[in-house]
Amino acid sequence: MKILIVGLGLIGGAYAKKLTELGYEVYGSNHRIEPINFAKANNYIKDGSIDPREYLPIVDMVILGLYPSHIISFLKEYNAYFRKDLLITDVTGVKSSYIVEATKESLPATYLAHHPMAGREKKGIEYASEVVFKKANFIITPIAGYEYDQKYFDMLYKIAKDLEFKNISKLDTKSHDFMIGYTSQLAHAIAVSLVNSDTKPNTKLYIGDSYRDLTRIAMINEVMWTELFFENKEFLIENIDLFMNQLNKIKESLLNNDPDTLKELFINSTKIRKEMVE
Amino acid sequence: MKILIVGLGLIGGAYAKKLTELGYEVYGSNHRIEPINFAKANNYIKDGSIDPREYLPIVDMVILGLYPSHIISFLKEYNAYFRKDLLITDVTGVKSSYIVEATKESLPATYLAHHPMAGREKKGIEYASEVVFKKANFIITPIAGYEYDQKYFDMLYKIAKDLEFKNISKLDTKSHDFMIGYTSQLAHAIAVSLVNSDTKPNTKLYIGDSYRDLTRIAMINEVMWTELFFENKEFLIENIDLFMNQLNKIKESLLNNDPDTLKELFINSTKIRKEMVE
Repeated sequence: MKILIVGLGLIGGAYAKKLTELGYEVYGSNHRIEPINFAKANNYIKDGSIDPREYLPIVDMVILGLYPSHIISFLKEYNAYFRKDLLITDVTGVKSSYIVEATKESLPATYLAHHPMAGREKKGIEYASEVVFKKANFIITPIAGYEYDQKYFDMLYKIAKDLEFKNISKLDTKSHDFMIGYTSQLAHAIAVSLVNSDTKPNTKLYIGDSYRDLTRIAMINEVMWTELFFENKEFLIENIDLFMNQLNKIKESLLNNDPDTLKELFINSTKIRKEMVE
Repeated sequence: MKILIVGLGLIGGAYAKKLTELGYEVYGSNHRIEPINFAKANNYIKDGSIDPREYLPIVDMVILGLYPSHIISFLKEYNAYFRKDLLITDVTGVKSSYIVEATKESLPATYLAHHPMAGREKKGIEYASEVVFKKANFIITPIAGYEYDQKYFDMLYKIAKDLEFKNISKLDTKSHDFMIGYTSQLAHAIAVSLVNSDTKPNTKLYIGDSYRDLTRIAMINEVMWTELFFENKEFLIENIDLFMNQLNKIKESLLNNDPDTLKELFINSTKIRKEMVE
């Protein structure tokens, strides 16, 4: 299978490297030349160009490793070069905002987005080799009501299998965005807020593994995540409120001198978390 | 040096194991016999007994691996058996609540509490070998105004060095409790609340490493942590409020369509977190 990866950043680069290793014929495109040169020098791609039109006529699949805002402009700019038997997918963390545009009838190709739940707190193809797909979750996200040939779903599924993702599941775009508002964006909002609550000097002398683990993702690509937060604003706010409500229960149990309620909250979280990692 | 460890749980057991390996002469006491038998069978201690009076006359140091509420009763019950040249310390995560009692003049021994910032989401001496002290933080916490001979501080410092703790620092009990309200208890309150905010089935199919890391400590010993939260109630509530205030800033930036403020929050957290792990 021939694949074109557009956007050779951290995740696009990781796809290029691993798919090439698996024997896929991989081409790369990027608006800057440096990542293309890096990808070529490290044998992540067979060839690459700033102009994706060089490969659009020959590939079976296009994987977009782009920010949400750039997906729409890519689809508009190259619409004339898409074929009916082409599958276009993307790796973006939020789906609802652009997916209507991507799947409307004027797009000749089939569009099936997905979300590989793996990353690093770094940006750029230089760190692509640090991304671990093995055992990560993979979500295929068709928009509700969108019709597509099952063979394209199977193509995407096969790639996820080959890359050794653990759970490969399907979720409509809206359900995906609510879930991701919870499992990913809320988690990042919490980590950032925890670090920003630091009021004392020398805090690093007094932290343990808990704090270290909870704040790892507070080192954050501010451009990409600002875009992701705003793209998913409503669901994220809903999840922030759900979370604050739970944290308030802990606070209330302390204010009300109610250790039994606090214990129940701990027992509940222990139970849920255990089932999650099983 | 001869050391008696009272309370052979996860942390007490880890001290016993590692100090014995380092060549210290270690004795153990516990209100149940099973952990003593386990410690003897695994050569964590030279000998052990349910009655600590067997070893109090011969040891140089007592390390209490007890819940806060049991420290006070231990000190009262065995007061008559403490000597002037005995150092008593404890590993408890909250200090202010019992330390006045522990350091008052009626106590013949020297009392210098400390806090090893290492643990596991498990309880019991069976998991003691999983506790990693190496590179963890170690805080010695004298109560403000309490006078003690420097040699006892040095004894405790030496043990921390031998156990390969990374940063060994000194912090008065109140400052310690505020800091721990932030770095440890708030972190646990957040992890528990994040897990308890889960509203959907099958969430585990849609989580990534971020969520996994942020919720590891949501598996929590509900008896010990309820006690720790209540012992440090005021400082914990203060830190919950500081954190909620920061999370509200993220929410407000979304509601106000203000990406610049959101970006600033991300840039700030990235900077603070980087300095912490350097």
